[in-house]
Amino acid sequence: MKITELETPALLIDLDIMERNLNSMAAYTKAHGLRLRPHTKTHKTPALARRQMELGAVGITVAKVGEAEVMVSSSPNELLVAYPVIGGKKLHRLMDVAKHTNLTVSLDSVEAAQGLSDAAAGAGVTVGVLVEIDAGMGRVGVTPGPQVIALAKAIDRMPNLEFRGIAFYPGHIKLMDDAGHAALARVDDLLSSVISDLKTAGFAVPIVSGGSTPTMHHLHEVPHMNEARPGTYIFNDRNTIASGACKLEDCAASILLTVVSTAVPGQMIIDGGSKTFSSDGVGGGATGFGHLVEAPEAVFEKMNEEHGYVKLKGVSKGFKIGDRVRMIPNHVCVAVNLHERIYGVRGDEVEETWKVEARGKLQ
Amino acid sequence: MKITELETPALLIDLDIMERNLNSMAAYTKAHGLRLRPHTKTHKTPALARRQMELGAVGITVAKVGEAEVMVSSSPNELLVAYPVIGGKKLHRLMDVAKHTNLTVSLDSVEAAQGLSDAAAGAGVTVGVLVEIDAGMGRVGVTPGPQVIALAKAIDRMPNLEFRGIAFYPGHIKLMDDAGHAALARVDDLLSSVISDLKTAGFAVPIVSGGSTPTMHHLHEVPHMNEARPGTYIFNDRNTIASGACKLEDCAASILLTVVSTAVPGQMIIDGGSKTFSSDGVGGGATGFGHLVEAPEAVFEKMNEEHGYVKLKGVSKGFKIGDRVRMIPNHVCVAVNLHERIYGVRGDEVEETWKVEARGKLQ
Repeated sequence: MKITELETPALLIDLDIMERNLNSMAAYTKAHGLRLRPHTKTHKTPALARRQMELGAVGITVAKVGEAEVMVSSSPNELLVAYPVIGGKKLHRLMDVAKHTNLTVSLDSVEAAQGLSDAAAGAGVTVGVLVEIDAGMGRVGVTPGPQVIALAKAIDRMPNLEFRGIAFYPGHIKLMDDAGHAALARVDDLLSSVISDLKTAGFAVPIVSGGSTPTMHHLHEVPHMNEARPGTYIFNDRNTIASGACKLEDCAASILLTVVSTAVPGQMIIDGGSKTFSSDGVGGGATGFGHLVEAPEAVFEKMNEEHGYVKLKGVSKGFKIGDRVRMIPNHVCVAVNLHERIYGVRGDEVEETWKVEARGKLQ
Repeated sequence: MKITELETPALLIDLDIMERNLNSMAAYTKAHGLRLRPHTKTHKTPALARRQMELGAVGITVAKVGEAEVMVSSSPNELLVAYPVIGGKKLHRLMDVAKHTNLTVSLDSVEAAQGLSDAAAGAGVTVGVLVEIDAGMGRVGVTPGPQVIALAKAIDRMPNLEFRGIAFYPGHIKLMDDAGHAALARVDDLLSSVISDLKTAGFAVPIVSGGSTPTMHHLHEVPHMNEARPGTYIFNDRNTIASGACKLEDCAASILLTVVSTAVPGQMIIDGGSKTFSSDGVGGGATGFGHLVEAPEAVFEKMNEEHGYVKLKGVSKGFKIGDRVRMIPNHVCVAVNLHERIYGVRGDEVEETWKVEARGKLQ
């Protein structure tokens, strides 16, 4: 099938770029002795998780139990749920997942650990646990110090749980200048101290898992971590560019759209808005809701649910109703979550059609 | 089933409030002689479209062909696609819809009309057309004046199309003060002039269709319109409150969430973020991403995809891991689009479970 045969809006993935991104991250983590456990929240697609596994990932990462259920067949040896699972029904479902893979869950409370232990004991399975520590982002995670040891000890005492190490997410660190690199060095100091305390308390710490999109090519600056969980790298987006972690030519995802109205002078309306892109903005001094491939100087200024407003002031190229254009989104993970299918393209050809099977798995 | 048995995040609809909203709009439009043609973008659920039809709606409104396909069985007598349909495959699908209802499409260009005519002629059906006029919002719509007459004449000449009137969307008008009401009066003047010009040119104008959420209880201030297309009124949300068009007690939709982390002092993390709510903000001086029913003074300050950050400074009520809370969203239409199911609740009981069948229908 040709791209011209697709209906719009359609989410396209340039397969050449995606494969380059996958190979590059596999090579980077291998070169630095990091286990690679990609977060599948970006693509939500088992076939793409399998591509990551074929390229040397040790396992995959998900956030929600519903994603684990979809993804487990792609990752039979290792599956990390990087989110505390709270609530009986969810834990019951998670135990079914645990019967088909080596499951690890990251969490930051005795309550979450207790629920997991009860469920694991009930199902007769053993579940690994990473203690989530707060490396400065202030979202989730135990503050480094005695609380980490206390939680590790509590986990150690609970039936059917196995303490496997620590997890962190340095989502607050941007690497645009020296301050960012210094912050990354402080994270390493923090990890060093936590690992040392845990070892003193008698724990082995086989897994030290972390990473974020802006830091994804600088994880070797955190030598105490041994496992990376990048997500966005497979496709990249305008926010990845804004964080300095990739360039425009590394963005594999674009949305194919049709011009549906040019009635208002100096503007065209495209057939995708917040229901197609999400309303997520962009950082790093960039503006607008996307990068128009056919005319980068155009400004994707505003959205309603089904309407994208593209301002054409100073744009030399003309657009008419029925023209098709491509827009690189600000935040590809939330855009993927809005699409039923992903089209893998090479040149003008649609080579692959994937259903986004873990789309909208909120629970 | 009890609400306590639901997994979270879950989208709850208070049926008492929803029914009051439906009845109130039915009564308002009836009292003012307005045909009611609700936009189903808010609920995306055929069973709720049928409720609207039972309460006297003449038909329903959708934006995309994929929504029309899902909704057509709920509205066999009248269906309005309030969006220009551009592209051969979509038009072909739309003609299948036209075989099962009396279809009308609003559009603002000769190109869109020509495509529709060609498709209708090919399928042997007649399709009604409303000319979309720009009432000041600057999104889509022909600028009032000779262009409206020119487009009506072009439509009139095209086979298998039937000119049925005009449509407009005054989404730019807020009714917080006299200026808003004056703007609404200007819209009526505009309609009067367009209708008069059309009649002079020999056209009957049976349908004058418009309305927006902020103006929904003031459409009688636009006496030249005869059809209202409200959407959000069935559920309402924080933006409806911000626009002055409803009060907190009119909001039927809330999202049920679980507290999953309290590791960071003064904050709790709930298990829904931008993948559950969308990133849409709120207007009218309000802040945050939702209204926490259990503690309205709490601030839902920040979101990642799966994490909601709720600041608890100055909040007297304590929350612990595993607690369940309800949050009224900023923009319910985009939130509904993120959920697989809607739960209709009354008191503590889940009375209805609806699949959001037109969710994610982008095409």
